[in-house]
Amino acid sequence: MAREINLNSDMGEGFGAYDIGNDTALLDIVNSANVACGFHAGDPKVMHRLVTGAKRRGVSIGAHPGFDDVQGFGRRQIHMKADEVEYMVAYQIGALQAMAQYAGMKVTHVKAHGALSNMACRDRDYAAAIGRAIKTVDNSLVFVVVHGSELQRVCGELGLTMAREGFADRQYDDDGQLASRAIAGAVLHDPRAAAKQALMMAKDREVISRTGKRLKIEVETICVHGDEPTAVPVAKAVRAALEGAKFKLKPLDRMQLGRANA
Amino acid sequence: MAREINLNSDMGEGFGAYDIGNDTALLDIVNSANVACGFHAGDPKVMHRLVTGAKRRGVSIGAHPGFDDVQGFGRRQIHMKADEVEYMVAYQIGALQAMAQYAGMKVTHVKAHGALSNMACRDRDYAAAIGRAIKTVDNSLVFVVVHGSELQRVCGELGLTMAREGFADRQYDDDGQLASRAIAGAVLHDPRAAAKQALMMAKDREVISRTGKRLKIEVETICVHGDEPTAVPVAKAVRAALEGAKFKLKPLDRMQLGRANA
Amino acid sequence: MAREINLNSDMGEGFGAYDIGNDTALLDIVNSANVACGFHAGDPKVMHRLVTGAKRRGVSIGAHPGFDDVQGFGRRQIHMKADEVEYMVAYQIGALQAMAQYAGMKVTHVKAHGALSNMACRDRDYAAAIGRAIKTVDNSLVFVVVHGSELQRVCGELGLTMAREGFADRQYDDDGQLASRAIAGAVLHDPRAAAKQALMMAKDREVISRTGKRLKIEVETICVHGDEPTAVPVAKAVRAALEGAKFKLKPLDRMQLGRANA
Amino acid sequence: MAREINLNSDMGEGFGAYDIGNDTALLDIVNSANVACGFHAGDPKVMHRLVTGAKRRGVSIGAHPGFDDVQGFGRRQIHMKADEVEYMVAYQIGALQAMAQYAGMKVTHVKAHGALSNMACRDRDYAAAIGRAIKTVDNSLVFVVVHGSELQRVCGELGLTMAREGFADRQYDDDGQLASRAIAGAVLHDPRAAAKQALMMAKDREVISRTGKRLKIEVETICVHGDEPTAVPVAKAVRAALEGAKFKLKPLDRMQLGRANA
Repeated sequence: MAREINLNSDMGEGFGAYDIGNDTALLDIVNSANVACGFHAGDPKVMHRLVTGAKRRGVSIGAHPGFDDVQGFGRRQIHMKADEVEYMVAYQIGALQAMAQYAGMKVTHVKAHGALSNMACRDRDYAAAIGRAIKTVDNSLVFVVVHGSELQRVCGELGLTMAREGFADRQYDDDGQLASRAIAGAVLHDPRAAAKQALMMAKDREVISRTGKRLKIEVETICVHGDEPTAVPVAKAVRAALEGAKFKLKPLDRMQLGRANA
Repeated sequence: MAREINLNSDMGEGFGAYDIGNDTALLDIVNSANVACGFHAGDPKVMHRLVTGAKRRGVSIGAHPGFDDVQGFGRRQIHMKADEVEYMVAYQIGALQAMAQYAGMKVTHVKAHGALSNMACRDRDYAAAIGRAIKTVDNSLVFVVVHGSELQRVCGELGLTMAREGFADRQYDDDGQLASRAIAGAVLHDPRAAAKQALMMAKDREVISRTGKRLKIEVETICVHGDEPTAVPVAKAVRAALEGAKFKLKPLDRMQLGRANA
Repeated sequence: MAREINLNSDMGEGFGAYDIGNDTALLDIVNSANVACGFHAGDPKVMHRLVTGAKRRGVSIGAHPGFDDVQGFGRRQIHMKADEVEYMVAYQIGALQAMAQYAGMKVTHVKAHGALSNMACRDRDYAAAIGRAIKTVDNSLVFVVVHGSELQRVCGELGLTMAREGFADRQYDDDGQLASRAIAGAVLHDPRAAAKQALMMAKDREVISRTGKRLKIEVETICVHGDEPTAVPVAKAVRAALEGAKFKLKPLDRMQLGRANA
Repeated sequence: MAREINLNSDMGEGFGAYDIGNDTALLDIVNSANVACGFHAGDPKVMHRLVTGAKRRGVSIGAHPGFDDVQGFGRRQIHMKADEVEYMVAYQIGALQAMAQYAGMKVTHVKAHGALSNMACRDRDYAAAIGRAIKTVDNSLVFVVVHGSELQRVCGELGLTMAREGFADRQYDDDGQLASRAIAGAVLHDPRAAAKQALMMAKDREVISRTGKRLKIEVETICVHGDEPTAVPVAKAVRAALEGAKFKLKPLDRMQLGRANA
C-alpha cells in the first residue's frame, strides 16, 4: 500500500496593505496551510481570504500562532510567563476557528510560528503551554511538532494527535536541529536539492546533515517555506518527487495519525 | 407567571498591568458578562480570569467586540470597510469562544462595544456587518441590540435571536436615544434613581426622558456600567428593585427569547 | 530668472519584514522625502535607512505623521479629540528629528498623511491641531498644505512657512479637490499625462479638471506617489518635463518660501 | 560644603483610559522624572501632562525608553538586534524631546526601563546600543546607569555624562545586583527602612545586602518607585532623611556630574 505524506506551508502572512509570500501559487501545491492568526502577521481579512482559498483547493487549515509582534514578524524571542503563552495560543486558535466558518471548514491542526516554536522546542514550559492550549480548545487538533523537540515530548504526554515535521528546504545540523539561517547554504534554493532531501526523509527516513552525516528522521509532514523567492519552484519540485515515488499526498486531517505516546 | 429579566455589564476591561472596573463585585450581581476581546481592552489572560470567574458565579458570557484601539478604549470612531468590520467582529467572537473552553462554557451572546456600537446603531452597513459575523460564527448567539437602532433592524432581517437592551444608569433623550455623556446628569450616579429607572423599564415598559417625556421601551436586558465609581451600589440597587418586584433575573442563555423578525 | 519648484514623495513606508514602495529609485528623482514616522507605516530602522539614504542624495526630509494604524496604513479616518491629534503629530515629528541625527540632518518640513490629511483639509480643529504641533516643536518647519484647504488657512493664521502642493498623478474635481481614488482614471498611470499636468501646474498655474474645466492652482511643490507600480517612470517623466522647461528643482529647505498670511 | 543628591522616579505610565502610579504626589517629592515614551507605557497625551506638571514643580525630565510592549509593561525580555534596540531608543528620546517643547523644557537625562534595562545591564551589545542612541541624539544627555553594570562601562567608553543610581526601596544581593522581585521582602514597603537605606547609600556609600553583607556603592541619584501602593510615604521619608542630613536635593541637570571615563 502506498505510504502517505503531507506538504505544509506557512501562509496568510500579509498585513493590511502589506503582502508577503506566494499564497495563491502555493495553495495549488501543498495539502495543508498554516495560517497566521493576526499576532505576528495576518489580519482578519487576510485570514478570510486564505481560508476561502484553501477551501476551493481542498487544502486543510491549521492555526499558526506566534508572538504578538508584527514588526518582528514573530521572529524575536519574547519572554512571557507560561500561562500568558498558553492563553495567547488558545486565543489565536479560536480566532481562526471563527474565520474558518466563512468557508464552512474546521481548523484541523496547530503549528507554532517562528521564535515561539524555536523557544518551545527547547523550553519544556513553553512547549507544555502550547500543548495545553491545544488540548483545551479542541483536543482533536493535530499538533505539528519538530522531530525530537520538547514539543514532541509534550505532545506525547498530553496524548495529542501528532504529526512530525521535516523541512525540505533547510539544512540540518549533526544533532538533528535545523542549521541557523545565518549560515551560508542553510536555506536550499535549488529545487532539485530540496526535492531530493524531501524524498530521502519520506522514503528512507533519513537526512544528510550539513557535514555529511546520515541522520534518522521520522516525518509525517514536510514543510516548504512560502516567503523565499524560490518557494514556488521548490514546492513544485518537492511535490513532483514525492508523487513520482508513489507517495499519496494528503491534507493532515485525512491522514492516519496516531495519538502520540510519551 | 413572574416575568424574567437580565442584568448585563461590560467586563474584563483590564489590559496587562492595567486594571479598570469592578469585575469581582459585579460578577456577584449581574447575570451576564460582556467580555472585552483584546481589541479595545482585555487580553487573553484577563479573558481567562473573567470566564473562570463567571463560571463560578453562574454568569453567562458574551463577546463584547470593539475597534482595535486600546489607547482609545474603543471609544473612537474608526472608518473601516464593512467587510473589515465583519471579519474583525468574527475574529473576536472566536477568540472568546476558545477562552471560554477553559471554563467549559459556551459564549452565548454578542454585544458591540463603544464607538463600534454607536456607529452601528445608525449605520446600516456596520450593523449588517456585525449581524453577518454573528450569523456566520454561531447563529444561535443572542444578539444584544439597542432598542430602535439599525442593530435591531438587522437582527430581525437575519433572523437572529434578539435581546433588546435598556440602560439603568443613563438618561434618555426624547427620541429614545441615550443622552450624550457630555451632558451634566446624563450618567445616573444615584442608586435609587437608577433602580427606579430600571424598574420602570422592566415593569411599565416606559422610561422618562431628560425633559420629562414618557417614552415606550421594550427590553429583555438592562445594562449597568462597570467603570463608574458608583457602579457597584448602582448595580446592587437595580438588582434589589427588580427582585423586590418579583422579576426572575436570568442569564441571557436561559431566557425565553424569540428569533427576531423584521 | 528661473522659477524654482520642488518634487516630493511619501517614503519609508515599510514595516519590519514588510516592504512597499520604491524608495531607492525615488530618492534619485525627487528633492524632498515625506518620511513615515512609525504610526501608519515605518519603524525606527526603516526611518534610519531612509534618512541616511536621503542624506547621500541631497534629498531634504520631512515628517509625514499619520494615524496610529499600521493595519489601515493610515487611510482610515479615526475620530480623536483635537488635543490628541496635536500631541500625536508632535510626537511623530520629534521621533523623526531624533532619527535625522543619524544623518546629521534636520527635519525641515511636515506633511500630514492619508486620512489625517483628508480630515484636516475639511476640519478646522484637526488642521489647527496639526499647525499647533508644528509651531510648538519647531516653528521654522515648512508646512506642506493642500491648496485651498483648512490646512492652508491654519498655516496662514499661525504664520508658519508654507508650501502649497499639487499632485502630478491624480485627477482633480471641478472644485479643486482631488478626485476620489474610487473613480476610474483618478490616478494617472501614464508618465506623459502626469508630466503634462505637473508642467501646467508649475508653469501656467492651472490644472484641467476631470470634466475638462480649467482651474487656477498655486503650488510650490508637486507630489509623485511612491506606492503605485508606475511611480518611478511617472516621477522621472515629471522631473524631465520640469527640467526641460528650465525649472530649478530644489529641496523644500532651500526654496524661497514666505511665511503664510491668512 | 553640602553634598548633592538626586531623587528620581518613573512616571507617566498611564495609557489612554488606564492610569497607574501617583504622578501628582510624586512630582512634589522627587527632583527628576523618568518619562515613559509610549512604547511600554505612556502616550502623547500622558507625556504632555507629565512634562507640563514637571515644569510647574521644577522637576527635570528624562526619557525612560522601553520595549514596544504595553501589554507586558516593558517587563518582558524581547530579543532584538542591537541596531533595532538603538534606533528604538533614539526614536523614543526624540518623541519626548518634542513633547518637552510644550513646557519649554529640555530632556536632560535617559534611563532605560524594565526588561530593556535588565538585559542591558548584562549584555554589552544592548548597553552599547543604548549608549550610541544617546550619543547620537544629544551627547549632553545624562545617562542614568546601574552601578557596576555594562551600562556604566559603556557610558565610560562613550564619554557620556553619568549618574549612578541606587534604589531606596529594593533589597540588594551580595553581588551588588538588585534582589529579584520574586523574593519575599525584596521590595521595601516600610518608609523608615527605605529612608535608612537611601541615607546609608548617600552618606556612607554603602548598602547592606539581603544576607547582611556590607557593600560599597557610589550613587548620584536614588530611585523611588512610583507604582507601589506605598510609593508616596516611602518617597517622602527618603526625602526627609536626606534633607535631615543636609543633602542638597537637585534635578539631574543642575548637578555637578562628570563625563564618565572607562
